[in-house]
Amino acid sequence: MNYPRGIKKNSISQKNNQEINYKNRGMTLEGEINDSNKYYQEIEKAFIYKKPTPIQITKVDYPSRDKAVIKEAFFTTPSTTDYNGLYKGKYIDFEAKETKSKTSFSLSNIHPHQIKHLENIDKNGGIAFLIIRFTTINETYLLRAKDFLEYIKENNKKSIPYSYFKDRAYLLKDQYQPRIDYLKVVDQLIGGI
Amino acid sequence: MNYPRGIKKNSISQKNNQEINYKNRGMTLEGEINDSNKYYQEIEKAFIYKKPTPIQITKVDYPSRDKAVIKEAFFTTPSTTDYNGLYKGKYIDFEAKETKSKTSFSLSNIHPHQIKHLENIDKNGGIAFLIIRFTTINETYLLRAKDFLEYIKENNKKSIPYSYFKDRAYLLKDQYQPRIDYLKVVDQLIGGI
Repeated sequence: MNYPRGIKKNSISQKNNQEINYKNRGMTLEGEINDSNKYYQEIEKAFIYKKPTPIQITKVDYPSRDKAVIKEAFFTTPSTTDYNGLYKGKYIDFEAKETKSKTSFSLSNIHPHQIKHLENIDKNGGIAFLIIRFTTINETYLLRAKDFLEYIKENNKKSIPYSYFKDRAYLLKDQYQPRIDYLKVVDQLIGGI
Repeated sequence: MNYPRGIKKNSISQKNNQEINYKNRGMTLEGEINDSNKYYQEIEKAFIYKKPTPIQITKVDYPSRDKAVIKEAFFTTPSTTDYNGLYKGKYIDFEAKETKSKTSFSLSNIHPHQIKHLENIDKNGGIAFLIIRFTTINETYLLRAKDFLEYIKENNKKSIPYSYFKDRAYLLKDQYQPRIDYLKVVDQLIGGI
């Protein structure tokens, strides 16, 4: 019944904003990834989608036979990551998060279920990763699930330092279209680099 | 704002039922697939999940800092299928539907977006299919997206006759665990049979 970790009050309207404005500055990471995925779909390069926010519906009204209005519902904890799909015959799976911190990424941003999920995907031949944006310094990184899991196992800490991203992760540059070309890095991962 | 095609009033409570009763008789197809997926996850065979029902949230209340209650929301049309995930390094994607008809499966059960999505997945190296249950005769079939799309293209009809399922689809038998062992058929599809 609690509000999900990592989702903030003002992100609700953004989540439901169906219109995409390519010129929009100061877009959220989620908005930019959704744009990029839409672009990848349009050029038939990849079919990766954000999963709907999981909710538990407790009350529904039926003003008419064909209409339903949800009158009460609650956010629930996701059991998987937010994004998954298909690229070059490969199963792609990732979670995207923003942090205001300049020095580290807090692990409280990722649910234990999601960590287990990333591990399952990585172990079973999927391409799993995180996309983390340090909003204050405006740097976005792709961190492989393998490196993420290794850090968690070897370090009993509550956060991953920025330096670890500098060392191990792939910097994703902001551009026009796609906004974040993360599949360029996925190409490297598939190639085994 | 309309109620989504194919979702009926009494399916709402079922959708939100978190508890799984393995002994439950007369379970819906969705319930049985969710059970089967849970079982596959437990034995670490496959990681396939149902996507949450897509909704558009229009009103949220915050009774306290950490709580949020959705006070108004509407069902929206899904742009993809309901189920996807990873099995043996392959991307799996499918839609599941029940029909009461004994003679045919109405194509009005599948959105145009979903048909396009199945086509994209099939063309790009994913394993895409439908699971259709004829509830009156209690027969459940797995129909490959390839065969489904071929039928649609060659026949300008509004439904697929039962006989086409008999000819082309794979009969899925009900069993104890997993309830519907559809990955057995996927093994054959991967094998190229």
